[in-house]
Amino acid sequence: METIHIQLEDRSYPIYIGEGLLTQIKLIESHLKQKHVAIVTNTTVAPLYLDPLLNGLKQQGIQAFPIILPDGEVYKNQETLNLIYDALLKEKCERTTTLIALGGGVIGDMTGYAAATYLRGVPFIQIPTTLLSQVDSSVGGKTGINHALGKNMIGAFYQPQCVIADIDTLKTLSQREFSAGMAEVIKYGLIRDEIFFDWLEKNMEGLIKLNPSLLTEAIKRSCQNKADIVEMDEHESGVRATLNLGHTFGHAIENAMGYGVWLHGEAVAVGMVMAAHLSKLMGWLKDHEFNRIVKLLKEAKLPIDPPKISEDQYMKLMSMDKKVVDGKIRLILQKGMGDSCITSDYDPNHLKATLKTQKFSA
Amino acid sequence: METIHIQLEDRSYPIYIGEGLLTQIKLIESHLKQKHVAIVTNTTVAPLYLDPLLNGLKQQGIQAFPIILPDGEVYKNQETLNLIYDALLKEKCERTTTLIALGGGVIGDMTGYAAATYLRGVPFIQIPTTLLSQVDSSVGGKTGINHALGKNMIGAFYQPQCVIADIDTLKTLSQREFSAGMAEVIKYGLIRDEIFFDWLEKNMEGLIKLNPSLLTEAIKRSCQNKADIVEMDEHESGVRATLNLGHTFGHAIENAMGYGVWLHGEAVAVGMVMAAHLSKLMGWLKDHEFNRIVKLLKEAKLPIDPPKISEDQYMKLMSMDKKVVDGKIRLILQKGMGDSCITSDYDPNHLKATLKTQKFSA
Repeated sequence: METIHIQLEDRSYPIYIGEGLLTQIKLIESHLKQKHVAIVTNTTVAPLYLDPLLNGLKQQGIQAFPIILPDGEVYKNQETLNLIYDALLKEKCERTTTLIALGGGVIGDMTGYAAATYLRGVPFIQIPTTLLSQVDSSVGGKTGINHALGKNMIGAFYQPQCVIADIDTLKTLSQREFSAGMAEVIKYGLIRDEIFFDWLEKNMEGLIKLNPSLLTEAIKRSCQNKADIVEMDEHESGVRATLNLGHTFGHAIENAMGYGVWLHGEAVAVGMVMAAHLSKLMGWLKDHEFNRIVKLLKEAKLPIDPPKISEDQYMKLMSMDKKVVDGKIRLILQKGMGDSCITSDYDPNHLKATLKTQKFSA
Repeated sequence: METIHIQLEDRSYPIYIGEGLLTQIKLIESHLKQKHVAIVTNTTVAPLYLDPLLNGLKQQGIQAFPIILPDGEVYKNQETLNLIYDALLKEKCERTTTLIALGGGVIGDMTGYAAATYLRGVPFIQIPTTLLSQVDSSVGGKTGINHALGKNMIGAFYQPQCVIADIDTLKTLSQREFSAGMAEVIKYGLIRDEIFFDWLEKNMEGLIKLNPSLLTEAIKRSCQNKADIVEMDEHESGVRATLNLGHTFGHAIENAMGYGVWLHGEAVAVGMVMAAHLSKLMGWLKDHEFNRIVKLLKEAKLPIDPPKISEDQYMKLMSMDKKVVDGKIRLILQKGMGDSCITSDYDPNHLKATLKTQKFSA
């Protein structure tokens, strides 16, 4: 097991990464304020991992009850959140009851937000069961739900007591979901860690085959990169925005296709290709560097080319994005390998050329 | 105008108290990140104070739009909160848009919670227009909404950029509402400030007549007392609980009578009498001290005697209160004038005697 410590202004918490952690109940127990927990999970994850966790907790004399939600981004909304509140109130959960998020990013975001707002804040522990949530939502304290008019519009910054990333849970992920998570791993290499990008080029084959020590290393390095950024900028005013590399394009793709048709990581992969393409047109990225990016994403079995979306639709969807400041679309672009920035200082014609490109993989 | 500064761990904000502050737009302007504000108010307050505020903002080139909610505690819920979110999204409010809460405690709590959670947090300014909200919700950062299963069950700790307490707005309050606010003012004297209690005994007549300098002093002293407590204990683990003097009894009364039948401050007034009565039975408060408390509350035109509620119903309602820890009812009781504590170390028979008493004013 590897442990990294996320150090924030007012408090810190550990991320445990390794095999068989789900049933190492002492990891959970050491963070409880009362032997009473609510496990929030969904109909897909519950049959796989709920019983081992419940049994383990029971053996340690920890009172636990499950809250099983429907699965999917489409349920990341106020109605589902209310199911959590209702259950917590019915079970008379107090300020010292801990919520455990057992599942992927949607479960983590909703459970974290419920924890942030139930009785104005109760403790919570994250047990992310997807690669995406292990490398992304483990660090940064972003919690929230979607609104009919936009994704993640309602939420709070709220930190967990600890994160338990059990890589055994990745064995039950589909290839598509695993690859979608890998898109965010590759992102850390692109935005600030060229050495990690090189390492990923060397080890992608083993990672795809779920080699435990490679996976542990990749997750650790991703979390550490994210932690470094978040520590610099806890409330997302500057450098933290680079974590959204590929996301403005990606959100437009997700939105245009209807949420859930493309996985988030798949849309981000294409978004990163688009950002790299625009960076290349601006002369900030060399041809062979652009090609390395495309090649690594392909090896991770990720899509490279966007769906058919008109330039007008892109512009409309992208200007709805949260990163608009005073009405101007700012983008995360690359200034080289392992180097990125947030900028509106690009040639609009180059952006048009990127938005018009249908095939980047040629 | 008087100004006090609330100093919290990571930031501080001013409370401005005085006459005619609503139209001193520079107070607002100095706290804006962008000249764009949403004013959240209700159907009662809007006809009185919305236009002067909107016109003042317009004259300073500040873009403002109102969100007018139905009035009443019964609307302090998820549905009304959604009206705020919907309006903010439709007006494309960004992270630098400031929400202004123009109204009493319900408007302040909901607007603060909307600000805490819209885009994971936007700035907000409070303009409390009732005595209760000027002395109570101005300090402490408690925001939130009610749930069908309990009051203030969903919320967040979130601090405003500034609070503007314009005492002119108290002229349009009903006598009942004014007195209800005065209950919380008296509370500060009871829990920690005997000198203030003495001052209130001397000046209650002038306060009831809305003498501006006396009102400014009473609000300032109340906010300062609350600030001192909150600064000691920002997240309500210990001493902050004393702010709930009278509230456990009071919530039971409000709940039993149906929310809105008794005003919160009226229920708290009777709750404080009950707490003082139990303290007297425990030998912690002398007869003549108990009588002074009853007399001052009467002079503030507050009720002294509880409605008819059975002992069983009291116990049931009180054990639902948030201050239950590990299943035990803890109460805020007085250890003398200007001295209070949170304790479960009282004689249950004395509690029963207090709950059975129908008339304290004899």
